[in-house]
Amino acid sequence: MDKKIAVLPGDGVGPEVVEQGVKVLEAIADRFQHKFTLHYLDVGAAAIEKFGTPLPSNTLEVCQRCDAILFGAVGDPKYTHLTPGQDRPEQGILQLRKKLGLFANIRPVRTIPSLLHLSPLKKEKIKNVDFVIYRELTGGVYFGTRGRNEDGSAYDVTTYHAREIERIARMAFKQALKRKGKVTLVDKANVMETSRLWRETVCKIGQQYPSIQLDFLYADNAAMQMILNPRDFDVILADNLFGDILSDEAGAITGSIGLLPSASVGDGTPLFEPIHGSFPRAAGEDIANPMATILSVAMMMDHFKLYEEASVIRHKVRHALEKGIGTAELHLDTVYSCSQMGDMIAHLI
Amino acid sequence: MDKKIAVLPGDGVGPEVVEQGVKVLEAIADRFQHKFTLHYLDVGAAAIEKFGTPLPSNTLEVCQRCDAILFGAVGDPKYTHLTPGQDRPEQGILQLRKKLGLFANIRPVRTIPSLLHLSPLKKEKIKNVDFVIYRELTGGVYFGTRGRNEDGSAYDVTTYHAREIERIARMAFKQALKRKGKVTLVDKANVMETSRLWRETVCKIGQQYPSIQLDFLYADNAAMQMILNPRDFDVILADNLFGDILSDEAGAITGSIGLLPSASVGDGTPLFEPIHGSFPRAAGEDIANPMATILSVAMMMDHFKLYEEASVIRHKVRHALEKGIGTAELHLDTVYSCSQMGDMIAHLI
Ligand SMILES: CC(C)[C@H](C(=O)O)[C@@H](O)C(=O)O
Ligand SMILES: CC(C)[C@H](C(=O)O)[C@@H](O)C(=O)O
Repeated sequence: MDKKIAVLPGDGVGPEVVEQGVKVLEAIADRFQHKFTLHYLDVGAAAIEKFGTPLPSNTLEVCQRCDAILFGAVGDPKYTHLTPGQDRPEQGILQLRKKLGLFANIRPVRTIPSLLHLSPLKKEKIKNVDFVIYRELTGGVYFGTRGRNEDGSAYDVTTYHAREIERIARMAFKQALKRKGKVTLVDKANVMETSRLWRETVCKIGQQYPSIQLDFLYADNAAMQMILNPRDFDVILADNLFGDILSDEAGAITGSIGLLPSASVGDGTPLFEPIHGSFPRAAGEDIANPMATILSVAMMMDHFKLYEEASVIRHKVRHALEKGIGTAELHLDTVYSCSQMGDMIAHLI
Repeated sequence: MDKKIAVLPGDGVGPEVVEQGVKVLEAIADRFQHKFTLHYLDVGAAAIEKFGTPLPSNTLEVCQRCDAILFGAVGDPKYTHLTPGQDRPEQGILQLRKKLGLFANIRPVRTIPSLLHLSPLKKEKIKNVDFVIYRELTGGVYFGTRGRNEDGSAYDVTTYHAREIERIARMAFKQALKRKGKVTLVDKANVMETSRLWRETVCKIGQQYPSIQLDFLYADNAAMQMILNPRDFDVILADNLFGDILSDEAGAITGSIGLLPSASVGDGTPLFEPIHGSFPRAAGEDIANPMATILSVAMMMDHFKLYEEASVIRHKVRHALEKGIGTAELHLDTVYSCSQMGDMIAHLI
């Protein structure tokens, strides 16, 4: 198979972890006789430094022509206090999602038996947790009008169209058919009108999937249930903002955010990225966990329908962890650096 | 002391738990020679049934003339699927907060040594957790314009004025002076303009409290840190929506939402309520935990500057729990019903 892959390392630990993802891509290409042509591109704070914008037009154009995007992370504490109107590194990923129409962010959350000790939750709570979050990614408050009024007050507008809800709801129901058969919509329908539109629309789509159980949870209650009964979830569906909060919370309950991959899909070139973010404090230290990026590469392989390749990657990652090898934050027997982990997985493949 | 107290039982388990709170109020009045005159009022679904509105004008007026409000809970699954414009039970509490100017919801989160086993988190994570959430309660998306556009899309507007932020920020900083000296602002300043106004304003107020450490966390990261490092928090400050989600999450990490009280304060009559909500499934079963309501009564006593009374209530609650007595969900040695718990605490006082 011949694929063009855009590689966007970005900021913080992004470049380090992406480098390991690339090693794995190359190992897979070698072993399975594929041709992956890589295009390195700037994004985020790194792009602001060079080009004055977090998403240079060349980056966008090349991404549009590629078959998939491997993304590191964006964000830099230097840009925390900006005056309104200034471009933040985060705009790099936000605009990329929007311009490519990547309306669904998919985050599988599954605990690994040999790593249950990492979770801040008790073993009996976290054992066999296996759900997936479908977060809407190109709508809501992230892309609404915002600004300041004349009296100095600030505002943000959340807007949703039924069609924006329908397309991701369909994906979520289809996924539930392949899993435990349950979709849980998270919203604030007791307060927000957009949430009410979500409920109506998702109910309507749900009628086309009569075998799927459809549940509703207010976001506050969902944040609670995620900790009290994480095993009860199967497919979680949420808007952009609630999905953002819940999927990070879900990362925390496993205790190993360094292991969680994600895929953002929709109309354009799909994007694969670790969920952990730029983690500036660890940047350049070679201590970040590259597994989330490597597992994002596995999701990319799934997307290419290269199922054996995907499963080889997952198997090698699991194998290493079960042997007690991991980056420092995993507290396993053998501590490897970020690049050592990448080398090992690539070598095993 | 002579105080007028409005009693709003509301829906679900509200009436049952409020009844126990009233027993405690009466016991305190007896022992300390106070006169608490109680005014029972309708709110929520209960008020919709009787008067067609979740906040009858009589309820509001009497509340305005009282010194404090003891509130149960509102919400009923019957009203889950309403057409826009219809009044939900939740409007009972939302309008009450707004009309009385109760702009700060204060939720202390503290683990009780004898109940650490209840937490879904490991003991070493949850031990000595002691923080308090200051949630803005009369602004933001809860009270913004909302509706449907002609094309059928829905919208919600979040708005904040600097003065709405300043007044609660001051309360949070003052509280931090009495505690561990740290304020953590939770927002989404990498996306939302209102969040940026929160950061600016809170920074400005923070300059008047140079001894207080001011931290910032994005809401997604905060949802994560709450689970990974709950001991790191002291005073958490958040807008209405993020505060709603985070405070329920905080309830979950203790594993005992049935024990968490809250106070809503501001311009008008302060309101004291358990955080657990109406919990319709348990309504009428006499199994709900009344401790959160009873501890809300203790917060009311603090507000009246009746510190000894407050401490007696807290002491008796703790005493009962340490003796292994509690409602079923606490899994202690001796299971008491809701009313038995109330009787016992009142009797101990
Ligand atoms: C970087 C930031 C803008 C982004 C978001 O909030 O969407 C991140 O938290 C994420 O979840 O990918
Ligand atoms: C009942 C509901 C509208 C309310 C809210 O969202 O504020 C509740 O969740 C709370 O936190 O008091």
